[in-house]
Amino acid sequence: MSLAVCIVGKSGSGKTTVMVQLIQEFRKRGYKVAAVKHAPEKIAVDIQGKDSWKFAQAGSNVVLASSPERLAFMEVTDHDYNIDEIMRLVGGRFDIVLFEGFKRGRAPKIEVHRKEQGVELVCPVETLSAILSDEPMNVEVPQFPLNDIERVVDFIEKDMIPRAECNTSLFINGKQVFIKSFVKDIIAEVLVAMVATLKDVDAVRDLDISIRNKGG
Amino acid sequence: MSLAVCIVGKSGSGKTTVMVQLIQEFRKRGYKVAAVKHAPEKIAVDIQGKDSWKFAQAGSNVVLASSPERLAFMEVTDHDYNIDEIMRLVGGRFDIVLFEGFKRGRAPKIEVHRKEQGVELVCPVETLSAILSDEPMNVEVPQFPLNDIERVVDFIEKDMIPRAECNTSLFINGKQVFIKSFVKDIIAEVLVAMVATLKDVDAVRDLDISIRNKGG
Repeated sequence: MSLAVCIVGKSGSGKTTVMVQLIQEFRKRGYKVAAVKHAPEKIAVDIQGKDSWKFAQAGSNVVLASSPERLAFMEVTDHDYNIDEIMRLVGGRFDIVLFEGFKRGRAPKIEVHRKEQGVELVCPVETLSAILSDEPMNVEVPQFPLNDIERVVDFIEKDMIPRAECNTSLFINGKQVFIKSFVKDIIAEVLVAMVATLKDVDAVRDLDISIRNKGG
Repeated sequence: MSLAVCIVGKSGSGKTTVMVQLIQEFRKRGYKVAAVKHAPEKIAVDIQGKDSWKFAQAGSNVVLASSPERLAFMEVTDHDYNIDEIMRLVGGRFDIVLFEGFKRGRAPKIEVHRKEQGVELVCPVETLSAILSDEPMNVEVPQFPLNDIERVVDFIEKDMIPRAECNTSLFINGKQVFIKSFVKDIIAEVLVAMVATLKDVDAVRDLDISIRNKGG
């Protein structure tokens, strides 16, 4: 099960520092971690070796470079990827996917807050799972001091990971399709049951199926 | 349906030039194209903006940067990704996925051949879908002159795309599981039938389902 968590907060609140500390602490505890940064501006990606650039310049919509140690990927997109689309891409291969920003996304949020930036929060308090702050706040949400990242990770481990929803995402012909949750549940239960009958399969936590259907 | 095609050939045969020409011609004909380069050495990826680097240095297994125009992705891997794993990553979002190299991969292959490099091919001739060569070869495989990329793309369109197999890949808890083709067919048919009953769904060519299952 991959847990998506968004680290939100005002510009200058220290989101990036919190991201770095969370990555380090989760890695120390043995988790596989993915980190996602939202860049409002055009991203320049330089994949060493001119051949990859040649492919991009020739108009390839996406260029990948693969080596035994690294996989690099650069896609020209026509929209901002949402959390579901990114979770689809990173698949079930990571335990924790940390998003910097993405405050409008559909995932649990932790807000980083600093006294000097005023009392208001960037997200409605009822949408927050926790607050990291340099001052105690008069709100009904778990709060942690800004410098106590270990306690934050304890909280994510004990409170957020066990509550992470079962989530099913569906893409048809490359476009995400949003379906009612009971339909999702039916599809998920049928699939997990089918796959669980296969030999040598442990408990199914994450399941990814891709079908390239000839007929159409 | 995404078609994977490997462009194989000796070092110096001109694979990269053929890749570039194929990308340009497929894009000109309106296809969405992904291009994959195999790099035996360590790839250096530079995602502009120091924050993404901070995440990598902090130990994140994968770092993504997302903007409205670009998506960049850099993963630290413990093995060479195979074609199925890469096809899973690029999903059904591209019509043609061109691989440079990957001569041992499970996908149709086109070999680039030059007279001056000797008569032997890098792949057994019976595994090739076509040969691009600067000399006629005495083998039973469709052949095209090296500079006639339009005819190669005509051939891929008319001969390889319609023959592309229905392909199902299955990943459980992040690891690829290889199953017999009749089991794949059963899973694919059940799923496509379930999904086809949803409202507003066109003919299902590509289907990607990701389930993050709480219980495990």
